Amino acid sequence: MPTFTLDELARRFGLQARGDAATAVHGVCSLSPGKPGCIGFLSNPRLRDELATSLAAIVIVTPRHADAARGAALIAADPYLAYARIARLFDPERDFVPGVHAGAFVADSAQIGAGCRVAAGAVIDADARVGTDVYIGPGCTIGRGAVIGDGVRLIARVSVAARVVIGARCQVQAGAVLGSRGFGNARGPGGWEEVPQLGSLIIGDDVEIGANTCIDRGAIDDTVIANGVRLDNLIQIAHNVRIGEHTAIAACTGIAGSTRIGRRCMIGGAVGIAGHVEIADDVILLGRAMVTGSIPKAGVYGSGLPLDDAREWRKTVARVRRLGRLEARLQRLEKHLSLNAGSQDDDHSESI
Amino acid sequence: MPTFTLDELARRFGLQARGDAATAVHGVCSLSPGKPGCIGFLSNPRLRDELATSLAAIVIVTPRHADAARGAALIAADPYLAYARIARLFDPERDFVPGVHAGAFVADSAQIGAGCRVAAGAVIDADARVGTDVYIGPGCTIGRGAVIGDGVRLIARVSVAARVVIGARCQVQAGAVLGSRGFGNARGPGGWEEVPQLGSLIIGDDVEIGANTCIDRGAIDDTVIANGVRLDNLIQIAHNVRIGEHTAIAACTGIAGSTRIGRRCMIGGAVGIAGHVEIADDVILLGRAMVTGSIPKAGVYGSGLPLDDAREWRKTVARVRRLGRLEARLQRLEKHLSLNAGSQDDDHSESI
Amino acid sequence: MPTFTLDELARRFGLQARGDAATAVHGVCSLSPGKPGCIGFLSNPRLRDELATSLAAIVIVTPRHADAARGAALIAADPYLAYARIARLFDPERDFVPGVHAGAFVADSAQIGAGCRVAAGAVIDADARVGTDVYIGPGCTIGRGAVIGDGVRLIARVSVAARVVIGARCQVQAGAVLGSRGFGNARGPGGWEEVPQLGSLIIGDDVEIGANTCIDRGAIDDTVIANGVRLDNLIQIAHNVRIGEHTAIAACTGIAGSTRIGRRCMIGGAVGIAGHVEIADDVILLGRAMVTGSIPKAGVYGSGLPLDDAREWRKTVARVRRLGRLEARLQRLEKHLSLNAGSQDDDHSESI
Repeated sequence: MPTFTLDELARRFGLQARGDAATAVHGVCSLSPGKPGCIGFLSNPRLRDELATSLAAIVIVTPRHADAARGAALIAADPYLAYARIARLFDPERDFVPGVHAGAFVADSAQIGAGCRVAAGAVIDADARVGTDVYIGPGCTIGRGAVIGDGVRLIARVSVAARVVIGARCQVQAGAVLGSRGFGNARGPGGWEEVPQLGSLIIGDDVEIGANTCIDRGAIDDTVIANGVRLDNLIQIAHNVRIGEHTAIAACTGIAGSTRIGRRCMIGGAVGIAGHVEIADDVILLGRAMVTGSIPKAGVYGSGLPLDDAREWRKTVARVRRLGRLEARLQRLEKHLSLNAGSQDDDHSESI
Repeated sequence: MPTFTLDELARRFGLQARGDAATAVHGVCSLSPGKPGCIGFLSNPRLRDELATSLAAIVIVTPRHADAARGAALIAADPYLAYARIARLFDPERDFVPGVHAGAFVADSAQIGAGCRVAAGAVIDADARVGTDVYIGPGCTIGRGAVIGDGVRLIARVSVAARVVIGARCQVQAGAVLGSRGFGNARGPGGWEEVPQLGSLIIGDDVEIGANTCIDRGAIDDTVIANGVRLDNLIQIAHNVRIGEHTAIAACTGIAGSTRIGRRCMIGGAVGIAGHVEIADDVILLGRAMVTGSIPKAGVYGSGLPLDDAREWRKTVARVRRLGRLEARLQRLEKHLSLNAGSQDDDHSESI
Repeated sequence: MPTFTLDELARRFGLQARGDAATAVHGVCSLSPGKPGCIGFLSNPRLRDELATSLAAIVIVTPRHADAARGAALIAADPYLAYARIARLFDPERDFVPGVHAGAFVADSAQIGAGCRVAAGAVIDADARVGTDVYIGPGCTIGRGAVIGDGVRLIARVSVAARVVIGARCQVQAGAVLGSRGFGNARGPGGWEEVPQLGSLIIGDDVEIGANTCIDRGAIDDTVIANGVRLDNLIQIAHNVRIGEHTAIAACTGIAGSTRIGRRCMIGGAVGIAGHVEIADDVILLGRAMVTGSIPKAGVYGSGLPLDDAREWRKTVARVRRLGRLEARLQRLEKHLSLNAGSQDDDHSESI
């Protein structure tokens, strides 16, 4: 277990320190209750009171909370970011011993760069090119001619299909499928016929992809995930989708074919986005949002009817279904009182 | 194919029998039409009439339906539970021959208990500890230092990440990912930075986990799945979630980070639960419910607008969007008639 | 890279040609901007103007757009279908060299037909029967006694459970799980007890199944997927579901147990369908539809409240929750004016 002193951490991460310079930590902890010998952080000001009772040996705080710290403290403009960087010191999974395991299957024509680890049960097909310092975990399958950038980590059982390109320093969790066939089907006289998906999937640098997430290859052109994108678990990205730089998408979200999503968007969990729409930069979609059309401008968007007691919910559904009648009744009253202001509210439906 | 007589079943499972004690069954069947030589059950009283025509050799019924059975019957307070136990006699997949397949890759420092089967293509990393009578199916990957309890069955291609702990007698379906990295990202000056996920995932005893379900490890503390929990397929459980004993969750549900779910909850399919909320014991969430806040008390909850003819649906959406105007029109009428009771209905929005 | 001339393509696919018979293509392209040496198609008449500027060497068009083509053209009643068939000529992934890789694990009692490829890391259990010309990709696991038809392609890491039957010419993307245990649990005195899932999964001919999609085996009878069905990625199909011929289902959709879906249905993405319902032939369900009951007749159906600006959305939610009060206020006005037509609108709730 590595150990670091307050002084060492302050110097290494360029932070100001308060308290005993020799205070040592060997791991991380939550602020409350905290753990002796560990480092925690305060990023949510509402939890400030926890500083007084935390058992953490060192806490990372903003300048304005520095005085509230009981013991040793590191002062950072962004404590969560400082924590993220310091915590890497204690991550036991980051390092690996280079080498190709005897139980890995690497095609003769595949190229593997220096410093790579290929674990048991991994299969690398012909003409694949793997950069340097890459970790290919157990059970991964790398298709023919796929290209994997330097420093990539494929944790376990990741499938990279033929000709897919992955940039440098990407991390992909177990079970993800990169470059599966897009859902292209043409109606033939005897039923659906397969439309070959001849495009590929191009993933930029520093992208993270979650467990069991699927990204389809393009039909003709490529599906593109730009630099710095963050994808959580169980996400579906259909063929020809393009996702802009630094956009983050939470779990269970599905994006239909040919949709384009801008840069720095934040997309909540279980969002559904229709195909062939365009979403501007800096759009925030709340969880479970239902997106049926383009979003041309930055902003925060949501949809759906949140939870209710089931009996109340059923009444609400019935009331919503009576809305047409409610409008008619109101109009009748207005007419009766010669106050008809609602005639423009005919049943012109939304363009969904 | 094993065969059992009415008499044997009655004795083995402590049930009362009616009819010919020598009636033999070698498999299970639905009540209608039923199959000769097989055993079926009646648990839904509305299907009682099927007893008269069922071809089943033996039927399991409650005392009040015993007279309606045509032939041999077993009488049980809970026929479905009795069926569940009897059906195990006919399950061809429960047994396995112990041994480590020559095509499995087990690290030298891993410990494998007595009576275990490790199938071809399974990979067990250093310092993992596997209990007794465990089945590790083909293509499973067990990370460094993971702990797997006695009698666990990992069907195929299950990934257990480093240091994850699984209790006794759990069953995990193919493709599940246990202990993937939580979706922790901090904004840095150049884009998202990875927040190491240093907690683990602790799974209790007698837990079932479905195919391609993902459970993230904790960020600092652990993600915890208590004893007896049932998780269906394609479920997402984010970091630091805690799920109480005997809670059952249907497929496609997603639970965001740090949420706590009580004991004995029943959560329907495709439910979405926001992060950092608390759900009480014995809560029932209907399918597709959208949970944006805590649920402090037991009950049945639902949400969403169910299906409609598409044209009617579009009209309904338009009407819902006109609700603000409808309220204004009504208020105008009330004012006109000096009956204004609606002034409290200003547009104070929900706290979603 | 194979190359084909206009003349060859016209003859091989029975299409009429226009322009220089020797025009050669070696790949496919989008119509706009198009690529020299490649073939594109026009199926959406609104994109007709792209014909004038496309760089494609050959375009596939309907008779009515033939005159608008700049260069060589193939004329087809259904350009997209003609494209689908022609594009297969350029698909580098369709062919494989037969043989069982030294790193595959095939049980002695398994039968493998002529012309099959079994890739490294694939595991085929006892008594499995694999037809002719089958591709079993890396990391696939085939259970005991499973039956796989001629010409099937399992791309990578597909799990086929024991006794599952797959028809001819099916294609299954990476990570799919076919025949996982259904979610059958009975309440026992000490918590949930497993209900063995003794049925199987029967998949017809010419079925496509997407990445990480899960289909459970039946509890007693079988789960059935009929000929020609198309399933996208990350779909959940529970035990005992039956899906009719040529039905297509988009990604992220979940179908609960024992539901029956008709033939030629088109089901959008992220649809949720309750258990034990029946859906007629030729039903179209729009994306994100919430299906809580049977749909006895063909038609187009949808549900849900689409996206809004978050502030407007929150107001809408509040207004929907005030609907009961709104109705009461209106009724009061009607009474006041002796125009009460709304008394039938008591809070009888929907049968959800």
